[in-house]
Amino acid sequence: MPALNLRSEFAGADDLDTLMAGIGRRARAAARGMALASAQTKDVALRTIAERIRASSAEILRENARDVAAAKAAGQTQALIDRLTLDEARLAGIADAVEKIGALPDPVGRQLAAFERPNGLLIERIAVPLGVVGVIFESRPNVTADAGALCLKAGNAAILRAGSDSHRSAMAIARAMSEGLTASGLPADAIQIVPTRDRAAVGSMLTGLSGCVDVIVPRGGRSLVERVQAEAKVPVFAHLDGICHVYVAAGADLDMARTVLLNSKMRRTGICGAAETLLVDRACAGTHLAPLVSALLDAGCAVRGDEAVRAADPRVTPASPEDWRTEYLDAIISARVVDGLDAAIQHIEENGSHHTDAIITEDGAEATRFLAEVDSAIVTHNASTQFADGGEFGFGAEIGIATGRMHARGPVGVEQLTTFKYRVHGSGQTRP
Amino acid sequence: MPALNLRSEFAGADDLDTLMAGIGRRARAAARGMALASAQTKDVALRTIAERIRASSAEILRENARDVAAAKAAGQTQALIDRLTLDEARLAGIADAVEKIGALPDPVGRQLAAFERPNGLLIERIAVPLGVVGVIFESRPNVTADAGALCLKAGNAAILRAGSDSHRSAMAIARAMSEGLTASGLPADAIQIVPTRDRAAVGSMLTGLSGCVDVIVPRGGRSLVERVQAEAKVPVFAHLDGICHVYVAAGADLDMARTVLLNSKMRRTGICGAAETLLVDRACAGTHLAPLVSALLDAGCAVRGDEAVRAADPRVTPASPEDWRTEYLDAIISARVVDGLDAAIQHIEENGSHHTDAIITEDGAEATRFLAEVDSAIVTHNASTQFADGGEFGFGAEIGIATGRMHARGPVGVEQLTTFKYRVHGSGQTRP
Repeated sequence: MPALNLRSEFAGADDLDTLMAGIGRRARAAARGMALASAQTKDVALRTIAERIRASSAEILRENARDVAAAKAAGQTQALIDRLTLDEARLAGIADAVEKIGALPDPVGRQLAAFERPNGLLIERIAVPLGVVGVIFESRPNVTADAGALCLKAGNAAILRAGSDSHRSAMAIARAMSEGLTASGLPADAIQIVPTRDRAAVGSMLTGLSGCVDVIVPRGGRSLVERVQAEAKVPVFAHLDGICHVYVAAGADLDMARTVLLNSKMRRTGICGAAETLLVDRACAGTHLAPLVSALLDAGCAVRGDEAVRAADPRVTPASPEDWRTEYLDAIISARVVDGLDAAIQHIEENGSHHTDAIITEDGAEATRFLAEVDSAIVTHNASTQFADGGEFGFGAEIGIATGRMHARGPVGVEQLTTFKYRVHGSGQTRP
Repeated sequence: MPALNLRSEFAGADDLDTLMAGIGRRARAAARGMALASAQTKDVALRTIAERIRASSAEILRENARDVAAAKAAGQTQALIDRLTLDEARLAGIADAVEKIGALPDPVGRQLAAFERPNGLLIERIAVPLGVVGVIFESRPNVTADAGALCLKAGNAAILRAGSDSHRSAMAIARAMSEGLTASGLPADAIQIVPTRDRAAVGSMLTGLSGCVDVIVPRGGRSLVERVQAEAKVPVFAHLDGICHVYVAAGADLDMARTVLLNSKMRRTGICGAAETLLVDRACAGTHLAPLVSALLDAGCAVRGDEAVRAADPRVTPASPEDWRTEYLDAIISARVVDGLDAAIQHIEENGSHHTDAIITEDGAEATRFLAEVDSAIVTHNASTQFADGGEFGFGAEIGIATGRMHARGPVGVEQLTTFKYRVHGSGQTRP
């Protein structure tokens, strides 16, 4: 199949508007078809899509090689090139992930509530698809398949906008997905890649394409999420920061605290659920602080602390006020001693990002208060902050983690990609 | 208590920004206090608020009389003055409504889901308050108490912006409510009225007051809702139109169709759940169309129809294409004959407003398809469209009806004024 000639496809802003409006209209029409598809049809479609991705591996890898060559020629960083590069094994993983999403329970049609009214009306609240999901991502071409498959599973249509580095790879994957949809009797337009590198296309998606986009999911770094949150005229599922805290309370078991803290910080430092700040209750600082700080330092983590933390280990450097609001995404942690639970909660409310925060304690009452009063999407007791993940929650996969308060909060899996409607069953009832 | 001197309170845009920022900050702080209040504390507070409203009736009615006098002097319509005017009976009704909202089950703290993971983690999804709700309304002063009480019941803080006509009445009611909160040990700032008639204050609320407003609820006419939806930078719970359909299918019982249709259209013509369009299946038009149309006309409803409908009764006037997209909110209905279920659904998808649509039929399969395929917040089978109401749904009360797809859809009651968080209970688990 010939690669699209992007240059010739449109010539300016008017053409971009026309192009994007057409994508929006086709997505809306496809969403209607997807919404009515049975669970079985969607399952078969996702298996077929996985097969098409495997069958198209030569083409996808060829297009990916062109992306990688262009990125190298443009002098992109090695980290970006690593994220961008596909090989047989990675592509097989992508296809397998699509198949796994297909095997998840259908989130559409679930009865979320049912109640009978005194007049005999039976009212049901039933899960239905959200509609059209706009996904804006950067260099990881696998997002096309992962995010696309989650949208399809939930009966939605997806409009995907790849970063310019991953554009050819994303187009090739999306073509395989559209073929799989067509082969399964579903609308090919339920997956569309914006076929231009013009950055204005992002702005166009953020305005909602005249009501043809229901929600935007940005998948990428902070600058992308910031732009999307600032400009979007439609709802956004995202988090800007993951400034996650581990609070070691007076009632903490030291061994458990050490294990959970090290995992929260060091298992992977670059993910949003990684801990960025350690808070230790003054009541247990005498026994717990030095061992915890030493364990971090010995594991290769830099520690930036207040005076009390610096006194515990000479390798600790001073924390500045900005440290409490910094997401390092690196082997660095800020640490301070606080005067008990209220001070810990206060610190988290003032400096946190409402993502994921943990308390370590054997004191149930203290844990209950922390879980109730810390206003974050995820609060954990005696468990690593790195469990902030749709897979770990049993959602099968996630399209992202949301820290907004509306509709979806925490890991956004297929259930959160649905909304609901009310079905009212009567026998001729009229309202008095 | 002296009435606030609005003029002297601030002198310009800078002062307005300062004023609104302060309101936002106080609301956010109050929201935290409300979120942690027990069900019992909130119940007692709402009963106390009801008592304070009753005890303040002289002051509230005096302020209302000033509003009414000003509205008359300004030459406002009789309809507006009717909406604006309070008397002892209406005020008693307002207090009773607050008490009823207090008696509803607490929507906060409900366990929405719970699951155990193979590693022993117990994950709960728990309802928590949304945060700060901004309510923008026009001339009905009772919105202060109704919307305010719903927000408080769900553990939220409310910032209310009254229309300039109802400003003094709203301030007086809000004062009584704040007193009730204080007397119950809750933050008085959980109810705040924007103490200025400056229209720029609305714009300021719509930007979210630097993250201090989580959702906006407009309560008023189409122009208000349109402005709010166009300008809001935060989520909005609203509907713009209620273009509701009654589809009389081939399998409809004529008597039931007539009864439900008349109720859907004529019980009250000015509410959003009132039917605006009648669709009749061609297969039953020979028997059903003329009786239905005559019943409407005899009940005092003007009928604007297509050719087939006009042939059924000489009193029918021709429908123009705009009629299919018009919300009359009056004793007028548009009517047409369609070729079966698919055509009916197509008409509704193209012309409707995703609010409430009804099918009348004895054929279960036909009803099932209609309920599944019509993409509206509420779909009814053999029941009046005028059941589109939180009270009728058993929600106790509603702050409005939403036709958006995110978070809340249909009647927005106290449950929909909450969001959720995940509580993760562990015993030292770390992520592999």
